[in-house]
Amino acid sequence: MTHLLHLDASARPGLAGKDEHGSHSRNLTHRFVSQWAAGRAQDGIVYRDIGQNPPSFISHDWIASSFTPEERREPWMRDTLAESDLLVDELIAADVLVIGTPLYNFGMPAVLKAWIDQIVRPGRTVEVDESKLPDPYVPLLADRPRHAVILSARGGIGFGPGGEMAHMNHLEPNLVTALNFIGITRIHQIAIEGQETGGEVLAASVAEALRQVDTLVKELQGAIDAPPLHARARQVELNQV
Amino acid sequence: MTHLLHLDASARPGLAGKDEHGSHSRNLTHRFVSQWAAGRAQDGIVYRDIGQNPPSFISHDWIASSFTPEERREPWMRDTLAESDLLVDELIAADVLVIGTPLYNFGMPAVLKAWIDQIVRPGRTVEVDESKLPDPYVPLLADRPRHAVILSARGGIGFGPGGEMAHMNHLEPNLVTALNFIGITRIHQIAIEGQETGGEVLAASVAEALRQVDTLVKELQGAIDAPPLHARARQVELNQV
Repeated sequence: MTHLLHLDASARPGLAGKDEHGSHSRNLTHRFVSQWAAGRAQDGIVYRDIGQNPPSFISHDWIASSFTPEERREPWMRDTLAESDLLVDELIAADVLVIGTPLYNFGMPAVLKAWIDQIVRPGRTVEVDESKLPDPYVPLLADRPRHAVILSARGGIGFGPGGEMAHMNHLEPNLVTALNFIGITRIHQIAIEGQETGGEVLAASVAEALRQVDTLVKELQGAIDAPPLHARARQVELNQV
Repeated sequence: MTHLLHLDASARPGLAGKDEHGSHSRNLTHRFVSQWAAGRAQDGIVYRDIGQNPPSFISHDWIASSFTPEERREPWMRDTLAESDLLVDELIAADVLVIGTPLYNFGMPAVLKAWIDQIVRPGRTVEVDESKLPDPYVPLLADRPRHAVILSARGGIGFGPGGEMAHMNHLEPNLVTALNFIGITRIHQIAIEGQETGGEVLAASVAEALRQVDTLVKELQGAIDAPPLHARARQVELNQV
């Protein structure tokens, strides 16, 4: 069984194409998880709507608690980290992290950065080994092949990799850097552009993004359904016998 | 009279060098504003501690309200935008914006992004002219020469412009892009690095950053005290007569 964690960061609760002023990024994640479930009904999907229920900002107490080794934590420290522990548990359990996010003012929505700041956790998602200064960080989520799927929506055009506005887009770059830091390195990106322009430009972008989502679901499910390489090698041996 | 707006985004309330586990970015902003006041006691300084009192996340209602022309706004829309209006008023009044911020997980603290999302406001800090698609944005804070001073603190080393880790630093790039978007283009950046390493590396970085802050205050105050160019030209004429 494969586990999905589905996050939505848009401030808009509805779905574009269905609800008035609906979210285009939610439309993409909705397509991704429904296509996924259609292909593999046995998988678990956990949903967290950080757009409507934002994570807390990290605080001075949070920092002090997270850098205190678990066995030395006082009760108030455990309470301070309870929300972070829940979010980290969900992330650790996930094989595929699906993030739906709009581009707000050239970067992540603040709610998504708040989530990132809650899940980058010393001792849980990244090990801090002070004996290894100046680079003391060991990513802990590289223990198995996790994927992240970033499904974004942008008002403008040309903000994707290689686009003429790409240097002004700090959303995916910040997200990818942070996910790599904790060991999630298999990252897939699909975006809708042209929400400000609307009309045919937007419609074409939506259609293309939905097509890419369908293709990505098939690819990822195909990789899961295929026996792992060592098992395949063994199968070849058996066939030869 | 020149107006300063002083923001602190660090989750740590204390000052490094004075309080235990104090904030290095707060140390820099504290130095900047105290040096400023020492040179120009007549100026106004507004302080907003977004690290301890975070701005709200923008919501679906916020987006709907901010894109509704002011004369058509219903009472609930005005209420929804009240916090944003306050933050925008402070920003519009400022000639020098001083931002103290740590680098959290390769980007802005979520509280700083929440502030950015509150102050990028259609009709107040950026005009949206739909007749100018696909680039309908006119920055409104370019009406007079505003400066932004970004004073940051980083755990690692080499995250500054030209540094070997610069590609992993999305804090200043996102901030600069957003400030440029609303018309603040005179941007000055000073950073402390090596907080994780500590010891002499950190001490040298702190000393150098404080020196740069003092120099920047003198430069900016010198530019204000000098008569504007057209006045200087007139003075030359008078001297010649």
